[in-house]
Amino acid sequence: MLTDRCIAINAIEGGITAPEGFRASGIACGIKASGKPDLALIAAARPVSAAGIFTTNQAKAAPVLVCQEHLQWSGGVAQVILTNSGCANACTGPRGMDNAREMAVLAANRAACAPAQTLVASTGVIGVNLKMDAIRAGVPAAFDRLSRDGHADAARAIMTTDPFPKSHAVEVTTSAGSFRVGGMAKGSGMIEPRMATMLGYLTTDADADPALLRRALIEASRLTFNAITVDGESSTNDCVFAMASGASRVRIDEEYYGALFSGFRAVALELALGVVRGGEGATKLVAVTVTGAGSQDEAWTAARTIANSPLVKTAVHGGDPNWGRLVAAAGRAGISFSLDRALVRIGPHVLFSDGEPHDELAPSAAEYLQGKDIEIEVNVGAGGTGRATMYTCDLSADYVKINAEYRT
Amino acid sequence: MLTDRCIAINAIEGGITAPEGFRASGIACGIKASGKPDLALIAAARPVSAAGIFTTNQAKAAPVLVCQEHLQWSGGVAQVILTNSGCANACTGPRGMDNAREMAVLAANRAACAPAQTLVASTGVIGVNLKMDAIRAGVPAAFDRLSRDGHADAARAIMTTDPFPKSHAVEVTTSAGSFRVGGMAKGSGMIEPRMATMLGYLTTDADADPALLRRALIEASRLTFNAITVDGESSTNDCVFAMASGASRVRIDEEYYGALFSGFRAVALELALGVVRGGEGATKLVAVTVTGAGSQDEAWTAARTIANSPLVKTAVHGGDPNWGRLVAAAGRAGISFSLDRALVRIGPHVLFSDGEPHDELAPSAAEYLQGKDIEIEVNVGAGGTGRATMYTCDLSADYVKINAEYRT
Repeated sequence: MLTDRCIAINAIEGGITAPEGFRASGIACGIKASGKPDLALIAAARPVSAAGIFTTNQAKAAPVLVCQEHLQWSGGVAQVILTNSGCANACTGPRGMDNAREMAVLAANRAACAPAQTLVASTGVIGVNLKMDAIRAGVPAAFDRLSRDGHADAARAIMTTDPFPKSHAVEVTTSAGSFRVGGMAKGSGMIEPRMATMLGYLTTDADADPALLRRALIEASRLTFNAITVDGESSTNDCVFAMASGASRVRIDEEYYGALFSGFRAVALELALGVVRGGEGATKLVAVTVTGAGSQDEAWTAARTIANSPLVKTAVHGGDPNWGRLVAAAGRAGISFSLDRALVRIGPHVLFSDGEPHDELAPSAAEYLQGKDIEIEVNVGAGGTGRATMYTCDLSADYVKINAEYRT
Repeated sequence: MLTDRCIAINAIEGGITAPEGFRASGIACGIKASGKPDLALIAAARPVSAAGIFTTNQAKAAPVLVCQEHLQWSGGVAQVILTNSGCANACTGPRGMDNAREMAVLAANRAACAPAQTLVASTGVIGVNLKMDAIRAGVPAAFDRLSRDGHADAARAIMTTDPFPKSHAVEVTTSAGSFRVGGMAKGSGMIEPRMATMLGYLTTDADADPALLRRALIEASRLTFNAITVDGESSTNDCVFAMASGASRVRIDEEYYGALFSGFRAVALELALGVVRGGEGATKLVAVTVTGAGSQDEAWTAARTIANSPLVKTAVHGGDPNWGRLVAAAGRAGISFSLDRALVRIGPHVLFSDGEPHDELAPSAAEYLQGKDIEIEVNVGAGGTGRATMYTCDLSADYVKINAEYRT
C-alpha cells in the first residue's frame, strides 16, 4: 500500500539488524538440553521508542506481565530485548515473576539502562522454572557477541519447534528519505488470531515517537500476525515488540505514518506467513478469504472459523476439494449466512454457487490442491461488503505427532 | 437422578426396538459403493408423539429442513423415521429438497400415514445428490424387513465412518408402572456441542404428549448429546429424534416427567459417550469438568474450549500430563479466570494449584493417562459455583488420516 509519502518498499538483507542502530546476538546458554541456541538479544545503542502487544490469554506468563509493567513505567522506551527459548516461564508463580525481573536486571546492568527500559520474553515448556544459573552466565556472553550481523543468530536462538528461522527486512523509500524495517519471529504451535500470536520483533531506524510506533505495530499486526492461525490456540507468552532507533533521521509524523505502517506490514506479513508455513506439521499455506459478509467483524469471524476447522484443514492436507466442509464451517460461524447465495472457490474453481454444487470441477480443484500455496474464497451470501483474509496451514498427522510427544 | 416417581433405571437389551410399539430394519439399498447397509427404518404402529432437535448450522441439509416442516405441520406426530447413510443430501439445492420430500412420500405411502407424519435423515458426503433409484427400491424392502428385533440392523445402517454401532436401552420403573427407553446413534466426525451433534434416535413406550416429549428430549440432550465434542465441528445434517408409542400405558405428566427425563438421559448419555469413544481416530474418552466458574454458562464455555483444544487433545493422546496446556486453554476461553487461584487435576493428581506447578506428580499423572477413560478437572479460580462437564476424545494421527482421505 504505497502512499504519497511512501515511494517504494524493497526487500533487503539483514533481518532484525538491517535498520541502523541495532545489534543482535544469539547463543546457547544451557537452557535447552539439546545444546541448541536458547538466548537472543536485540540491543539499541541507547534507550529508544518501543512498543509491545501481548497475548489476550488470561494466563499470562511472567515475562509478559513484566514487559507490560516496563512499557508503562518507561512511557514506551527500551534499549534491549532479551529472549530465552526452551522454557516459557509461565504458570510459575511468584518465583517466575522474580526470575523474569532478574532477567531484566541482568540485561539492564550490562546495557547501562534502567530495568524498566528492558523487555524480556520466554518461549518453551509451560510450568517449568527458568535455569537462572544458565541465564546469569548467558547474558554477559550474549552482550559480548552483539553485532550488526547478529540477526541470523538471534532468529535461530528464539526457535522452539520451528522448522526454520523467520527473518525479513525492507527498505522504505519516502519523499523525505529512506528508512529500514527489520524483523524476526518464532511460531510453530499455539498460533491463533486476534492478538500477538507468537514472538515477533520489529526494528526500524525511522524516527517515531512511542505513540505512533505503537499505532503502527497494532495496525500492521491486525492484518498480519493477528490474521494467522495454526491451531486456534493462544499462548501464555505471545508478544510482538517494536523498537525505533531514529538513526535514519526520517521523522514519522501523521503525514509519514503510512510509510512506517507499510514497512511494518510488509515485514510482519512475510514473518507471519513464515510462521504459518513453519506451523507444526504444516505442508501448505492456505489463505482463506471470506467475502459478502454482513460486516467486517462477521468476515473475520467466518474466516477464523473456517481457518481453524479441523475438517477443512485435513481436507486441504489430503488434497480433497471438499467444499461442503467449507460451507459447513461458514454455516456454524454464527454470522449472517445464506446457503442459497453462498459461493465457494478453491483456487480458480467455483465448486458451489447459488445453492448448487459444481462437482464437474472437483478434479481440477483436486489438482490445484496439490500446490503449496492455496487460496480459498467463501462468499457467505449475506450481500454485504465485509471481507477478511486469514492465513492458516493444513492439519497433518505430523501436527499430532509433534504435540503428542512435545515433553515426553 | 432418581425422583420420587422414578424408582429404578436398569439397562436392558433391545436398543431402539426395546420399547413396545416400535419395529426397525436396516438394509443395503445401494447408496454406499461398498455395499454396506445404508437405509434404516424405525416405525411405530400408528402416528405417535414425536419430537426433534436439529443442527444450529445455518447450512442445513434438505432432510433437516423437511423434518422441521413436518414436525410443525403435524403438531409433533410421526409414524416412521427413514434414514440413509452414504450421502448427506446437503448443499444440493432445490433438487435435494425434492429428493428429501420424495423420501418422506415413499415412506408415508408404505406406512399409510401422511407425509408430514414421517421424518427423514441423511448422513454422509455433502454436495452429492441422493441415488433416488436405490432409495425407491430400498424403501419397500426396508418396510418388508421391519421387526421387533431390527434394532441391530438399523443401528448398523446409519453408520458412516463409525467404528462400531451405538445402541442402548433401559427400563424405567416408576410408582405407576414401568416403561422402556431405547436408542441408537451415529457419530464419528463433525461432532460438536450445543446442538444435535450427530444422528440420535430415542424411542419410548411411555405415554407422553408431544410437548413433554420435546422438553425431555431437549433437557436430556443438553447434558449428553450436546455435552460431547470430537472436533468442534457441527454438521449440516445433525438431528436427534424422539418418538413415544404410549404402549406401556405409563402416562407422563408433570409429576412423572422426571422419570421420562431420567430414562432419556440414561440412554442418551450412553449413546453420546459411544459417539465420543468412536470418534474419528479416538483412543481415549476424556471427561473435562470445569469448576469454580463465575456462572454456569462460563463453565460450559471453558469446558468446551478445553475439550476442543488441539494441544490438550494431542497431549492426552501422547499421555503427556501437560497441565500448562489446560491452563492456557482456560485462560483463552474468554471467561473469568484467575491464574493465582486456578487448579488443574488429571485423574487424582493435582498438578497445578495456587499459581504453582506440582511437577513431582507428573510421572503418576503420565501413568494415569495410559488409561482409556480420562478425567480432567480445571478450577478456573473465579470463585463461583459454575460447573460443567464436556466429553471429548483425544486427537490422533488417525483423525487426520481419516479426514484427509474421506472422499479420495
